[in-house]
Amino acid sequence: MSLDLGRLSLNQATTMNWGTAQTIDGCARAGVGWIGLWRHKVAELGLGETARRMRAAGLRASSLCRGGYFPASSAAEREERIDDNHRAIDEAAELGAPVLVLVAGPAADRDLDGARQMVEDGIRVVAPYAEERGVSLAIEPLHPMFAGDRSVVVTLSQANTMAGRIGSPAVGVAVDVYHVWWDPQVYTEIARAAGQILGFHVSDWLVPPPDHLLGRGMMGDGMIELRRLREAVDGAGYGGPIEVEIFNQRVWDSPGDEVLALMKERFLSVC
Amino acid sequence: MSLDLGRLSLNQATTMNWGTAQTIDGCARAGVGWIGLWRHKVAELGLGETARRMRAAGLRASSLCRGGYFPASSAAEREERIDDNHRAIDEAAELGAPVLVLVAGPAADRDLDGARQMVEDGIRVVAPYAEERGVSLAIEPLHPMFAGDRSVVVTLSQANTMAGRIGSPAVGVAVDVYHVWWDPQVYTEIARAAGQILGFHVSDWLVPPPDHLLGRGMMGDGMIELRRLREAVDGAGYGGPIEVEIFNQRVWDSPGDEVLALMKERFLSVC
Repeated sequence: MSLDLGRLSLNQATTMNWGTAQTIDGCARAGVGWIGLWRHKVAELGLGETARRMRAAGLRASSLCRGGYFPASSAAEREERIDDNHRAIDEAAELGAPVLVLVAGPAADRDLDGARQMVEDGIRVVAPYAEERGVSLAIEPLHPMFAGDRSVVVTLSQANTMAGRIGSPAVGVAVDVYHVWWDPQVYTEIARAAGQILGFHVSDWLVPPPDHLLGRGMMGDGMIELRRLREAVDGAGYGGPIEVEIFNQRVWDSPGDEVLALMKERFLSVC
Repeated sequence: MSLDLGRLSLNQATTMNWGTAQTIDGCARAGVGWIGLWRHKVAELGLGETARRMRAAGLRASSLCRGGYFPASSAAEREERIDDNHRAIDEAAELGAPVLVLVAGPAADRDLDGARQMVEDGIRVVAPYAEERGVSLAIEPLHPMFAGDRSVVVTLSQANTMAGRIGSPAVGVAVDVYHVWWDPQVYTEIARAAGQILGFHVSDWLVPPPDHLLGRGMMGDGMIELRRLREAVDGAGYGGPIEVEIFNQRVWDSPGDEVLALMKERFLSVC
């Protein structure tokens, strides 16, 4: 199956040194029709102003990053996280973003099982509100190297099972190649996710990884079987935007227009 | 189940700044009865001399690190890796180490499936020789963050399945908490490994991880549910030595005798 640039989305994390206004202008210049927005970047420009500029430039939001972070030691803290997820759903609705990406959060008090239950409970609580506002919630498994500091959801199997148990039409999964490429079960689980894939993110795994958090590479520069994964996700019925999400200091320090040009080229040649 | 110091083994990677003679003397001073040896450290002192000094000090080798690294682009290279594994088996036999730890190695040419098959094929080839020499081969799944540079075997499920398919009495698995703690299937897979667990390694997962390779922590300093994992491994019938294996520059830079004292204390208080 061939890929066309109409599916390409720039996740804002790839050009973190750009503000949201610059990102919108840069995508318009480059002919990139989708942006994956981040809440803290949107807040800098303002929610209404971001939505207005996106419309004026003819751009659409592929997703909003991020909700989640459900586990906490006290009930009061967990309640605050729920409130924040409700606000994130409102923001996604106002931006016209069809999907809010959920990052589970780390465990409180070394209790992985307990934290995993808190994630499921939290999503169950916010799902009806998301459905009402027309926003879908994508459970994104993160690479197991983030299990200690960012996400107790670490495999697509786990995300699929959790989404299935919650059983809401508003809840599905996001597949990010950087997080799942190593998994011996990844193709089985992509097939199993058919009908509930809400997002697909690409980048590459560099060897050796230059950094714990900022170590992602441009597609084609690393180890990931990108085309095989993209075709598997397409084969599971996903035809939506594909976000390029590269956390990498060297990419951030490069001129944004050059990053977008290379991203377009690699999107077609290796994805 | 309570733990006694008779099961404590110092993996040489914890005191990398010590030579093998110093390690033997240090363990004797500290009353640590087992050492997990590394081939390159043993080579510095000499194989015969290491075996002689171990015997003289009344110490036993819990394992030898490491064999493996089976995948390679060419048949000739793969043959060299097989030869090296045969040598490693000979060395383990001469040292009286009952177990050779296998690290799978990374994929050649981005082909994960192919590399995983090369690992299984390689172990199949060397297993009869290991059996003949009285050495067991432990397939050690590494953390998925090493999938690009060190091991295409990344889950205990995968190691269990591979060992089962090979079906040799000389082949089993090693469980290292640092590599498997994040896995939602870890307790199921430890139970499934009953009867084929050949080693158990402890350390801790620091948050945030200070380094890709040298980021392990002393037991009790991180996120891992150590006692729960140790009891699960014991519950699966493993009663052998437990190796403390901490790759960490700060630990390496500390006086070895202090590291051993703290390791003994933490072994009893948190494992």
